[in-house]
Amino acid sequence: MPVVSHEPGQEADVVIAGGGVIGTAIGWRAALRGLSVIVADPGWGDAATNVAAGMLAPLSESVFGEQDLLALNLLAASRFPGFAAELERATGLSVGLRTEGTLSVAFDRADNDRLKRLTAFRREAGLEARELDARACRAAEPFLAPSVHGGVLAIGDLSVDNRRYAAALHAAAVAAGVRFLSGRVTAVARRTPGGYAARLAGPGDREGELIGGRAVVLAAGWRTGQIAGIPGYLATAFRPVKGQLLRLRHPEGLPAVLTHTIRAIVTGRDVYLVPRADGEVVVGATQDERDDLDVTAGAVHDLLHDAMSVLPAVSELTLAEARAGLRPGSADNGPVVGWAERSLPAPGQPPSGLLVAAGHFRNGIMLSPVTADAVTSLLTGDQPAADWKPFTPERLQTPQATPYQGSPS
Amino acid sequence: MPVVSHEPGQEADVVIAGGGVIGTAIGWRAALRGLSVIVADPGWGDAATNVAAGMLAPLSESVFGEQDLLALNLLAASRFPGFAAELERATGLSVGLRTEGTLSVAFDRADNDRLKRLTAFRREAGLEARELDARACRAAEPFLAPSVHGGVLAIGDLSVDNRRYAAALHAAAVAAGVRFLSGRVTAVARRTPGGYAARLAGPGDREGELIGGRAVVLAAGWRTGQIAGIPGYLATAFRPVKGQLLRLRHPEGLPAVLTHTIRAIVTGRDVYLVPRADGEVVVGATQDERDDLDVTAGAVHDLLHDAMSVLPAVSELTLAEARAGLRPGSADNGPVVGWAERSLPAPGQPPSGLLVAAGHFRNGIMLSPVTADAVTSLLTGDQPAADWKPFTPERLQTPQATPYQGSPS
Repeated sequence: MPVVSHEPGQEADVVIAGGGVIGTAIGWRAALRGLSVIVADPGWGDAATNVAAGMLAPLSESVFGEQDLLALNLLAASRFPGFAAELERATGLSVGLRTEGTLSVAFDRADNDRLKRLTAFRREAGLEARELDARACRAAEPFLAPSVHGGVLAIGDLSVDNRRYAAALHAAAVAAGVRFLSGRVTAVARRTPGGYAARLAGPGDREGELIGGRAVVLAAGWRTGQIAGIPGYLATAFRPVKGQLLRLRHPEGLPAVLTHTIRAIVTGRDVYLVPRADGEVVVGATQDERDDLDVTAGAVHDLLHDAMSVLPAVSELTLAEARAGLRPGSADNGPVVGWAERSLPAPGQPPSGLLVAAGHFRNGIMLSPVTADAVTSLLTGDQPAADWKPFTPERLQTPQATPYQGSPS
Repeated sequence: MPVVSHEPGQEADVVIAGGGVIGTAIGWRAALRGLSVIVADPGWGDAATNVAAGMLAPLSESVFGEQDLLALNLLAASRFPGFAAELERATGLSVGLRTEGTLSVAFDRADNDRLKRLTAFRREAGLEARELDARACRAAEPFLAPSVHGGVLAIGDLSVDNRRYAAALHAAAVAAGVRFLSGRVTAVARRTPGGYAARLAGPGDREGELIGGRAVVLAAGWRTGQIAGIPGYLATAFRPVKGQLLRLRHPEGLPAVLTHTIRAIVTGRDVYLVPRADGEVVVGATQDERDDLDVTAGAVHDLLHDAMSVLPAVSELTLAEARAGLRPGSADNGPVVGWAERSLPAPGQPPSGLLVAAGHFRNGIMLSPVTADAVTSLLTGDQPAADWKPFTPERLQTPQATPYQGSPS
């Protein structure tokens, strides 16, 4: 890591690179603990935050072989309602939390076999799920396709409106004194005599500005590895995973075509439909190892096809938006949260250093409260929850990692 | 018709209600003949002009039982290139005329039977078409689906970029002195001592303004019948026919996936793909007797599904726009062009009265040059082409007509 002695223009206890839900939640909680905070974000529009379904369903989402992540996700989901309630009290804004639960259904026999295997595994992990026959399914969701012969209702699953949630976080952070700067953190460096500096590239006179802080938090999603001056193993730790999703709306006069989050397996493909309080229905999501934001005809077709296969009335909804975002995938698809570099604090002083909070992949919304808790603990000299232990940056220090090279052509 | 003696604020020889391709083409040609012209349009955004594929293919579009319309469409298609060339010379703008022709293909055996029957009919009507086997189809369009076993190539078919064409018409009209007003013609009335007046509802101080002219041309698409003061049978003559279409684009690096206009019958449904010079591909179109502009999930799905069925590479294109427009359908689906009311001119004077130029349904772009020719002839005391004879307003004077009541709920 380079060392600079240049005196920066702006100072804060904590400088956060990235203003998605992760960076903003950290900023809000750190400010509530009395720290001064600057959040810098370039507003590139590819933030995964804005292209999310907002499902908070750790067990309905869990798959074989991710025990540590499941434990963390369970902690995250249990933390979410209290965090959201505090956020709503602080701002007076609704985040659109829904509590109807998830109805998982299968389209054909093979899909049903896979759903049964997954349900058995999820129950062992603690999922409270009720198996529904065709009649019970239709009682829960009257518009389901006749081909749906049964399903699994997960009662505790929640969902949140990702955009309302992000807007409330931003409002709370601003109210708590967080300063937001429009610009991209291009580099970080240790300063003499103490602390860290982040270099900002941004519009107009912000070009090249240095911002100083006792700690710098790297929360720039899949672009986190592009920041110069970070440890080499972090430069290779993140990759973009493109996702496309649709926002549909109920036209005037059409009753709600669904009330639960519906997850479906349709001839081997996963699709979900998440209803919002305001009549919006989110349909997602594709997953491709690419870094473009193109909305492709094939993805839109497949999402609509699969959604209409389980809920034909979706054809009557209007297409309000089709959008792509880039999820921050890590080398092992788990989040990366902890000290990347730490200066020994003077006696009685809080720790100083470089923190990372990235790689949240498909779970950024759900993990944002516990990530904010963990990073705030680290910033104030406390220990984060034990569930974070498997997700510190050190695990990524392997010699064979190679940097992300862009999408295959 | 009411009679007013109020002195209007603005005067022109010709007042045109409606600034789509029909009204604008008439305005341009009338101005070239030395007439002063005002075109009034509310800019509602539901103009069929903006939601069109721009196919100029009278025979590839023809179906059984529309002989008079076919003759008119053939006249229109033969007139188009010369009109477009004059328009491009006048403005320096390209209208994106393409001459590669139409390749009609069938998806399955039943579709192929229908295509063969239609082709036999179209050949009798004069279509110059070459039947292509699978190999020749793929030579013409290498990305066709393997399931396409043959097709019919119509060599003379053209297409035009509807938006470039509309923009060029507008530029030519302005250059020729046509005045464009932003507002809706809500009523027309005969004036004393002579001529006609149109009442304008529009933003700000244009509310209620009267515009006077020797002739008023009703070219307001499906809303033409909503103008007060017109003969009663015209109030019931037009209805909106909703169409949805998609605009796709080639992402960077992808070669053109088609060069001809492709028309396909896919399990009984018609779909077309029209390539543009700039890499855009228009996919259309649905047809529903509705008056809303909702873009529905079902329509987007079906258009993508059918397009990808014949040209799988469409899945790689990006979805740039999905949009609905309202075609102006008439009681018999033919255009309605001619005098609706005519005052006897003084000796040596040009005729005065109320003209209608609406109901062009699916063929507004193609018919706009010959419609402009016909209306300009009528305005200057000449006879329009004989092919217009079956399409005068009088044919609609039937007692049983009922006004359009809105979409079924």
